[in-house]
Amino acid sequence: MRDGCDSPNSRRASRLLLAAALATATTAVAEDDLADRYRELGQRVMSRALEDEGAWRKLEHLTTRIGHRLSGSPGLEKAIAWASAEMRKEGLEGVRLQPAKVSRWVRGRESLRLVAPLERELPMLSLGMSVGTPPGGLTAQLVVVRDEKELQALGREKVQGKIVVYAADWEGYGKTVRFRSNGASEAAKLGAVAALVRSATGRSIASPHTGSLSYAEGVPKIPAAAITVEDALWLRRLAAAGETLTATLAMEARLEGEADSANVIAELRGSEKPDEVVVVSGHFDSWDVGQGAHDDGCSCMAAWQSLVVLKELGLRPRRTLRVVLFTNEENGLAGGKAYHAALAGDYKGHVAAIEMDGGCERPAGFGITLRQPGEPRPPRGEAAPTAPPDARGEAALATVQKIASLFAPIDASAVRWGGGGADISPLMGEGVPGLHLNTVGEHYFDWHHSHGDTLDKVEPDDVRRATGMLAVMGYVLADMPGRLAP
Amino acid sequence: MRDGCDSPNSRRASRLLLAAALATATTAVAEDDLADRYRELGQRVMSRALEDEGAWRKLEHLTTRIGHRLSGSPGLEKAIAWASAEMRKEGLEGVRLQPAKVSRWVRGRESLRLVAPLERELPMLSLGMSVGTPPGGLTAQLVVVRDEKELQALGREKVQGKIVVYAADWEGYGKTVRFRSNGASEAAKLGAVAALVRSATGRSIASPHTGSLSYAEGVPKIPAAAITVEDALWLRRLAAAGETLTATLAMEARLEGEADSANVIAELRGSEKPDEVVVVSGHFDSWDVGQGAHDDGCSCMAAWQSLVVLKELGLRPRRTLRVVLFTNEENGLAGGKAYHAALAGDYKGHVAAIEMDGGCERPAGFGITLRQPGEPRPPRGEAAPTAPPDARGEAALATVQKIASLFAPIDASAVRWGGGGADISPLMGEGVPGLHLNTVGEHYFDWHHSHGDTLDKVEPDDVRRATGMLAVMGYVLADMPGRLAP
Repeated sequence: MRDGCDSPNSRRASRLLLAAALATATTAVAEDDLADRYRELGQRVMSRALEDEGAWRKLEHLTTRIGHRLSGSPGLEKAIAWASAEMRKEGLEGVRLQPAKVSRWVRGRESLRLVAPLERELPMLSLGMSVGTPPGGLTAQLVVVRDEKELQALGREKVQGKIVVYAADWEGYGKTVRFRSNGASEAAKLGAVAALVRSATGRSIASPHTGSLSYAEGVPKIPAAAITVEDALWLRRLAAAGETLTATLAMEARLEGEADSANVIAELRGSEKPDEVVVVSGHFDSWDVGQGAHDDGCSCMAAWQSLVVLKELGLRPRRTLRVVLFTNEENGLAGGKAYHAALAGDYKGHVAAIEMDGGCERPAGFGITLRQPGEPRPPRGEAAPTAPPDARGEAALATVQKIASLFAPIDASAVRWGGGGADISPLMGEGVPGLHLNTVGEHYFDWHHSHGDTLDKVEPDDVRRATGMLAVMGYVLADMPGRLAP
Repeated sequence: MRDGCDSPNSRRASRLLLAAALATATTAVAEDDLADRYRELGQRVMSRALEDEGAWRKLEHLTTRIGHRLSGSPGLEKAIAWASAEMRKEGLEGVRLQPAKVSRWVRGRESLRLVAPLERELPMLSLGMSVGTPPGGLTAQLVVVRDEKELQALGREKVQGKIVVYAADWEGYGKTVRFRSNGASEAAKLGAVAALVRSATGRSIASPHTGSLSYAEGVPKIPAAAITVEDALWLRRLAAAGETLTATLAMEARLEGEADSANVIAELRGSEKPDEVVVVSGHFDSWDVGQGAHDDGCSCMAAWQSLVVLKELGLRPRRTLRVVLFTNEENGLAGGKAYHAALAGDYKGHVAAIEMDGGCERPAGFGITLRQPGEPRPPRGEAAPTAPPDARGEAALATVQKIASLFAPIDASAVRWGGGGADISPLMGEGVPGLHLNTVGEHYFDWHHSHGDTLDKVEPDDVRRATGMLAVMGYVLADMPGRLAP
């Protein structure tokens, strides 16, 4: 547990150490044209960012005073109005709202009660975009499976009319999340009336974790909810012991049409090539639980503040550096799509897009992906390539590695192939290089999409580091003589 | 997250490695009479324990089929009846229930709702032994403090009629738990109508953690509950921002007199000195949340199974080895007191008492404490001595270190001064050496007293190791020629 208010003394000591490390970095980093050219600037920006209080103050306001920000909710509207007003006050350029229609999914009241072999309330969270149950709920027998194979083995005869419980083992988020995404429709294909999925987390303290589901076309939409890891495994044991399990699921979840929302945009306009753009971004919406602190408030605040830090230092890159706080990443991607659509086919101006959407633990470096225009994104759950497929990709990777070498003093210069973000994926599909700021990623999924995604999990110094890294990476990509992946 | 069902292959591989380590341990461990004398036996017992499935099967039954076991609840009664019946079936000797009257504290319905500056339900758990609120609850302004100093600084004028929120920083369980223990009465002394305390955990996923409070004599008893770390720190930030906070607390918590309960006892009766006794123990009761898996079901099952393993190997020590599953550790210590009282002043037969009550993570070794008869236990929260105060203690520590050297192959031979357990503390007060099986203790307090204390957090191999260590330590203490601390 970390408290944002770390002591001024320890903060000062840590900054002095970093300043010393930055000062000696000149000799530590391998000689290189691009890194050399921006080394002094990088040090200046990082030093300033490591003293920054602005990103933290913003994050504190966002999480403490506004709270979570589901698409179509008053929280998100309030956050958008607040951020754009603040950006104007700060004198950022081109501050604007880019409209997007978002789904207004509403959770409503919800409950799950085991009624046999014993009575017990089970904590749960309806999955985002799920339909609800009939009023008063539905009561049915549970069938517990570990995976799709066990579900298929049961067949329609044993699944029809039942509630399917996916009590999966943890295989990491990327794999285990498939039950949340596809489990409802897979169960519905066999006639199930509802689905309950083990929360997609490796660590749990009886905490349900929500997230979006996808209904397959042509399959009846059945209500689906996340249950805790504890209960999923307990139900599995009870079922294995031969118990017949029955539960009542009541969900008011519903889609209430569309709502007006917007991406929040601000810029440092380029001094020489203002029409060439580097995007730094996060998504401003969150789930309707917790505070959306790690997902993705802290990244938004770091991306926003990266422009403020550069502006305060009087720095203006040759190309335009643009912060975009995307709306509706969690359940629709309307923000990312609206940004892409607004370009109306003209993607050439976009030099690169950086997203940060993996929480704000200690930053470790960057990931980069470069696709051919029109090249499809690998399907969810499928392993993405880990090496550039061609010389253009290799060159882009090398360039980002050179820039990231400036982060060696804070041990954050690891660059790997593979990165980007959901919101910038439409741009990446047009061949725009996509980057992601990576962190050590130790606990992100413990808190992700749960009531526990709150400010107390965020370390102020990590936000400062991310701010500085986004500022330096964004600035160099926007300022360097040649384009990344020309 | 660990699942009990680790793969048979990995289990087998791990056992083969351990068997190899045990076989070479003869040369690895420093030569020593006591260790040498019991080395072969230790290897035999540990090898058997590392293959044991009994403790896990029992723990699975206890947690999955019986569940939590608050004093005076049907769960605890069921557990006591089940354990004693099983012990009889297993042919353990002297199986009996030792009666104890326990408090029947009942949680009832409970809720906490912030009503200003915004409306929000806050997850909570009434503290054990707390009184309830008036029917319908009480609504009052919140005053948020970090510690007693801030509370005192506010004084009666600002506390009178309010709900005190202890939003403490985490200083480790031993220190932070004081707000749970004493916070209600400290607040009541200044006229507060209720107290809310930050859960005594360093890690939280929006999880409230309960536990007992102590009301000071002569101070009005006010209702008290644990709130999540997240909410405590959020309320602190809101208060720091100048918000006036109001909440409605409704608790049906009440003491419903006393209930009949019992310690469960079974033995391997000593072959030569049956009246000299070594106790191995845990507490069978738990809080009324989760499954009481780590606190303290797993330890009870390991202590119980340690006798079964010895029996199955046909081993019988010279003195009596006695397992005691104490009742009512969590809220009264009636079991520990009843055991002590039943000895009616004759403690000389008790050679040593081992308790395990720190969860069942990977075992690391033992702690030992030896007090003079009548020497008081250090008050809660006060640092206990870390070295023996006299030659008798030094000798006892050295003996336990020698025995624990047999656990070097599983890296569990660390022995330190300081140990024992709440249930055996009345015995320790009579000069009986008290031991505690220590684990690495990495996550125990994350789960402790919460809905998350469930079987899925327990690693079967850790239970096996604890079973073997209790069996060997218990056997050697009961069998060795001279008494420990004669």
